[in-house]
Amino acid sequence: MNLAAAVIKGDARAAARLITLIEDEAPEALDALEELYPRTGRAYIIGVTGAPGVGKSTLTDCLIDVFRKQNKSVGVIAIDPTSALTGGALLGDRIRMQRHAADLGVFIRSLATRGWTGGLAKAALGAVHVLDAMGQDFIIVETVGSGQVELDIVKAADTTILVMAPGAGDEIQMMKAGIIESADIVVLNKADLLGTKRLEADISAALRPTEIGDNQWLPPVVLTESVNGKGAKEVVAAVIKHWHFLKYINALKQRRRERIKLELSVNIESYLKELVNNLEGNLLDKLVNDLQSGKTTPRRAARQVLSRLRKEA
Amino acid sequence: MNLAAAVIKGDARAAARLITLIEDEAPEALDALEELYPRTGRAYIIGVTGAPGVGKSTLTDCLIDVFRKQNKSVGVIAIDPTSALTGGALLGDRIRMQRHAADLGVFIRSLATRGWTGGLAKAALGAVHVLDAMGQDFIIVETVGSGQVELDIVKAADTTILVMAPGAGDEIQMMKAGIIESADIVVLNKADLLGTKRLEADISAALRPTEIGDNQWLPPVVLTESVNGKGAKEVVAAVIKHWHFLKYINALKQRRRERIKLELSVNIESYLKELVNNLEGNLLDKLVNDLQSGKTTPRRAARQVLSRLRKEA
Repeated sequence: MNLAAAVIKGDARAAARLITLIEDEAPEALDALEELYPRTGRAYIIGVTGAPGVGKSTLTDCLIDVFRKQNKSVGVIAIDPTSALTGGALLGDRIRMQRHAADLGVFIRSLATRGWTGGLAKAALGAVHVLDAMGQDFIIVETVGSGQVELDIVKAADTTILVMAPGAGDEIQMMKAGIIESADIVVLNKADLLGTKRLEADISAALRPTEIGDNQWLPPVVLTESVNGKGAKEVVAAVIKHWHFLKYINALKQRRRERIKLELSVNIESYLKELVNNLEGNLLDKLVNDLQSGKTTPRRAARQVLSRLRKEA
Repeated sequence: MNLAAAVIKGDARAAARLITLIEDEAPEALDALEELYPRTGRAYIIGVTGAPGVGKSTLTDCLIDVFRKQNKSVGVIAIDPTSALTGGALLGDRIRMQRHAADLGVFIRSLATRGWTGGLAKAALGAVHVLDAMGQDFIIVETVGSGQVELDIVKAADTTILVMAPGAGDEIQMMKAGIIESADIVVLNKADLLGTKRLEADISAALRPTEIGDNQWLPPVVLTESVNGKGAKEVVAAVIKHWHFLKYINALKQRRRERIKLELSVNIESYLKELVNNLEGNLLDKLVNDLQSGKTTPRRAARQVLSRLRKEA
């Protein structure tokens, strides 16, 4: 049986294997994704973002628990932004989640970033399709959303959760002022710590309702203590409420259109990259030489590459 | 006088204006960059990265001081990864640097991330060219290197400095395990804090020499207390040592080649984006519709866009 067929039957090992092939940009992965694509679009995608140390993984772990008690299957894609160089993934925080390893309704996978800038987005969206086609009801995409690509990915979710925590430092909180506008739900984790009330007030002051047509969504602030599971049920309830809101006002389709646009654009980029790498006659090397010796400029060189591509059509 | 000519004469206002135009991807910015390009390649580029709160800006501020005392001019490009949504830049930490505002030998500029994934890299490299053509001796590019694009940019420097601090949290330290391999110099800031010795030992254990041909560079670990300027001179000395090392072993040119490759690739991407956006007949909208209704797949759609591009040549 081929990989795609096995994934569609819900085979977790096949899904894990396929995601590895996607990370490696193996041609068979692209073929399998083509087969899977018509089977996708059923899962609900949740983005979880926040600074390092706020407890994203612990929260994700609690959300898994709640979803499982409601008999929903869950997939998790954890993006490790800094593992580009080691090639491995940050396992420390994921270890806790491994208690779900024996649960067939849970699939957890770390995704390492590597290669070209669009590669991460392409791999993450591909991995989401795999879990979707595999039949997971909910897919959580977790990432430190501080990079541009990482932020794009988390914004492409159906519901985006921003996790914050008291004492994470002023700078971090200021940084979040930028991300806060893309949050549908704000989770204030470690809510037993000093500074929670102050942070809650700051967040509430920063939040603005999202206007969609004549409708408004004011992101709720949910207090959690993920180390003991407190508040996780309320977070899931907020996700479901946001989902129903999007459906009720017919905005879910539009939101998913944005995700499709992102995926189309990374696929165009990726295909272009393939074409450029296959250009004959070492044009790229020659252009890099010319750039280094000042014989051309980046823009002129880029135009040359694309006009060459057109000629080779 | 046109912008490019004013920049070449060292006009800071013209430089600031041009960088804004580059951020906005204005056509006149591209023209000006074409003019500037032959005047670049003289400045030495230093990348400064590290987690939020470790004191990157404070260190940068100290480095400016040291360079100025050596009568060198300095340009700073500070990349604010999370300001995509507010459109503004994080000013809190930059305020300290503003004491250099009256010093004509110092040019400081924040760069907000926005738009497409390659846009940030393209703007950052463009801004570096502006400061280079303007005549700055050293250019510091500062960024939280936790995103993939941000990491690419900082790795494209001549010398990359990783800043760490005790007590920044285990998770952050683990994350840095990935970045540490691209560091030429590690700065251990806030070295008066408890935990410095332990962190220094951990870092030293994680560091491996970089092999370039028959030569080796073992990144030095420099202890600093940037709030009072301690250690900044030693950091600058380490930068100069690394520079001389690269020159001595003839590796600087190769290293700059990598930066040129990155720039060529973001320029190809950017030009492609322009071509795709100008495609006639709403092909993109049609493809997004087809994707949403399951009539095509992302890869097929991407191929269609590129074959259409070739036909319109």
